[in-house]
Amino acid sequence: MTKIINFSESRRGTDDALGDLHALFGEELQQVELAIAEHMKSAAALIPEISEHLIGAGGKRLRPLLTLSAARLAGYGGHDHITMAAAVEYMHTATLLHDDVVDDSDMRRGQPTARNLWGNAASVLVGDFLLGQAFRMMVAAGSLPALDILSSAAAVIAEGEVMQLAAMNNAQISEDSYLDIIDAKTAALFAAAAEVGGVIAAAQTAEQKALAAYGRNLGIAFQLIDDALDYGSINRVLGKNIGEDFAEGKVTLPVILAYHRGDAEAREFWEDAVKNPHNDGDRLNRALALMNKTDALADTVERARHYGDKAKDALGLFPTNDVQKTLIRLVDFCIARAY
Amino acid sequence: MTKIINFSESRRGTDDALGDLHALFGEELQQVELAIAEHMKSAAALIPEISEHLIGAGGKRLRPLLTLSAARLAGYGGHDHITMAAAVEYMHTATLLHDDVVDDSDMRRGQPTARNLWGNAASVLVGDFLLGQAFRMMVAAGSLPALDILSSAAAVIAEGEVMQLAAMNNAQISEDSYLDIIDAKTAALFAAAAEVGGVIAAAQTAEQKALAAYGRNLGIAFQLIDDALDYGSINRVLGKNIGEDFAEGKVTLPVILAYHRGDAEAREFWEDAVKNPHNDGDRLNRALALMNKTDALADTVERARHYGDKAKDALGLFPTNDVQKTLIRLVDFCIARAY
Repeated sequence: MTKIINFSESRRGTDDALGDLHALFGEELQQVELAIAEHMKSAAALIPEISEHLIGAGGKRLRPLLTLSAARLAGYGGHDHITMAAAVEYMHTATLLHDDVVDDSDMRRGQPTARNLWGNAASVLVGDFLLGQAFRMMVAAGSLPALDILSSAAAVIAEGEVMQLAAMNNAQISEDSYLDIIDAKTAALFAAAAEVGGVIAAAQTAEQKALAAYGRNLGIAFQLIDDALDYGSINRVLGKNIGEDFAEGKVTLPVILAYHRGDAEAREFWEDAVKNPHNDGDRLNRALALMNKTDALADTVERARHYGDKAKDALGLFPTNDVQKTLIRLVDFCIARAY
Repeated sequence: MTKIINFSESRRGTDDALGDLHALFGEELQQVELAIAEHMKSAAALIPEISEHLIGAGGKRLRPLLTLSAARLAGYGGHDHITMAAAVEYMHTATLLHDDVVDDSDMRRGQPTARNLWGNAASVLVGDFLLGQAFRMMVAAGSLPALDILSSAAAVIAEGEVMQLAAMNNAQISEDSYLDIIDAKTAALFAAAAEVGGVIAAAQTAEQKALAAYGRNLGIAFQLIDDALDYGSINRVLGKNIGEDFAEGKVTLPVILAYHRGDAEAREFWEDAVKNPHNDGDRLNRALALMNKTDALADTVERARHYGDKAKDALGLFPTNDVQKTLIRLVDFCIARAY
């Protein structure tokens, strides 16, 4: 019954929904980039230096694209979605900077992390600066309901990270508890990014909630695929080394499934692997074999697909236009990363 | 010409303006404490645990008192100053949590720091949570101008800390550059705390600016006294060990004055002391002797007095009542800590 996933297959040939989304919002994204560059200026030279390393180096801009897309879906004609989208990217970057400190990560997506290059102190402080700037930008956009959504997301993200920290070395954590964690640490910002686009467009409440649901479910799917990819082999495309989570003793859904479906010996292995994590090729191979035996990776992708389907359905409220269709394809694009 | 400061004299007998301020705002402070306790609740158990350690353990509540005082001076009759004051204390606590990580501090005010007890990761994340909650509270208070002031302060504080980080091992930094740093990292929050009290009370612009000026100048004086105290000996009262800044190679005003007033040999000593900091009683004694010879501590207090005088003058716009008089006495109280 073992399902086969070919993790080594290249992403080429898959439907490039993200590229199409970039094309649909080319002009607005350029304005977002300007707003991003504008707000990292500072008399403290380290701030633009580190910010540039992370945020200026480009990137998918997935979260700001959610804000822009949501605003357009909701028929927005103003300019505040630009500032809001830039603020969302700042929030995301601030959490990346702090996460690397929290995880002692030296590499992310094949690049040295900021803490690796500039140290923990600078990473913490520049993260704080970016978060402060994010709030400044949101305030400038002037929507209290949008501010409420994004400030709540900021607290919830940190809460999710603390929950993950507490669950760090516990292989016995339930799937539901783990979903609560990624709902907070990852999906909350996806949800907020989409929802505020609708909020500033003064969309109907049902539409705002539908946008939030799209973002939230996409975010969960996205994180689950990320979890699977950490045990996959598309290093070349993603620049993330295989087994980083494993080497850090991070309990993610593939581990949870392999643990719960494993025999006593397997469980002992997993308990030891997350309690005494270290970088070890043999142990990683054993982990991959156990995951393969229990369909842990294939079913992590299946779970992601479930949330992806919910994300697509949430967009049913909106007219079938280019943006709506591309957002629906974006779900499949995110999931296809695993193949 | 050496001025004598008796750092060992107890604080007893000095005019207790802070105690009087607490008495003047007893009922409102209780509501602030309730708001503080309410917003540290979380399903992630570490959050209330760490928050309680720092914020719940009491403290001077100096910054929230500035917000309450400013609101009353400006004749405010509403309830939002309570939420705002609690948010200000959350911002302050978040910066303390992150500062201890940035400085690798194990003790603060005679107590083990959160990072000492729970580690860096938890301190960073709980700090982020508190900052997120602070913004949520401010949003709940519903004043965009107040949000603008406090979000700007959040960015400026981080900017000041980054500037300090860059200046860390440089004894040659000018007094003006150092003042820019403490203006940002300490005084900005004092200024914002006072200003938002006026803003939510819809005070005249001149009054709002006067409140900000009071807070800002009080903040600078407060930080300079803190700098002097680090080389003083009222460990018992403040619970801060002498020479902590020195052991960390932190360049503060006493060092800057002693450096600029010193001879070639003294300058060599200071350059080495901040470049290769370590805990060493003999070196600390040498530092104290050089400060004594150059009046560095006495004149740091004199500089503080200068800013304190500006703070007092800023309150001249307001009617002479209990609150105004106590705020003026508060300046002297803060400076008297040095004696």
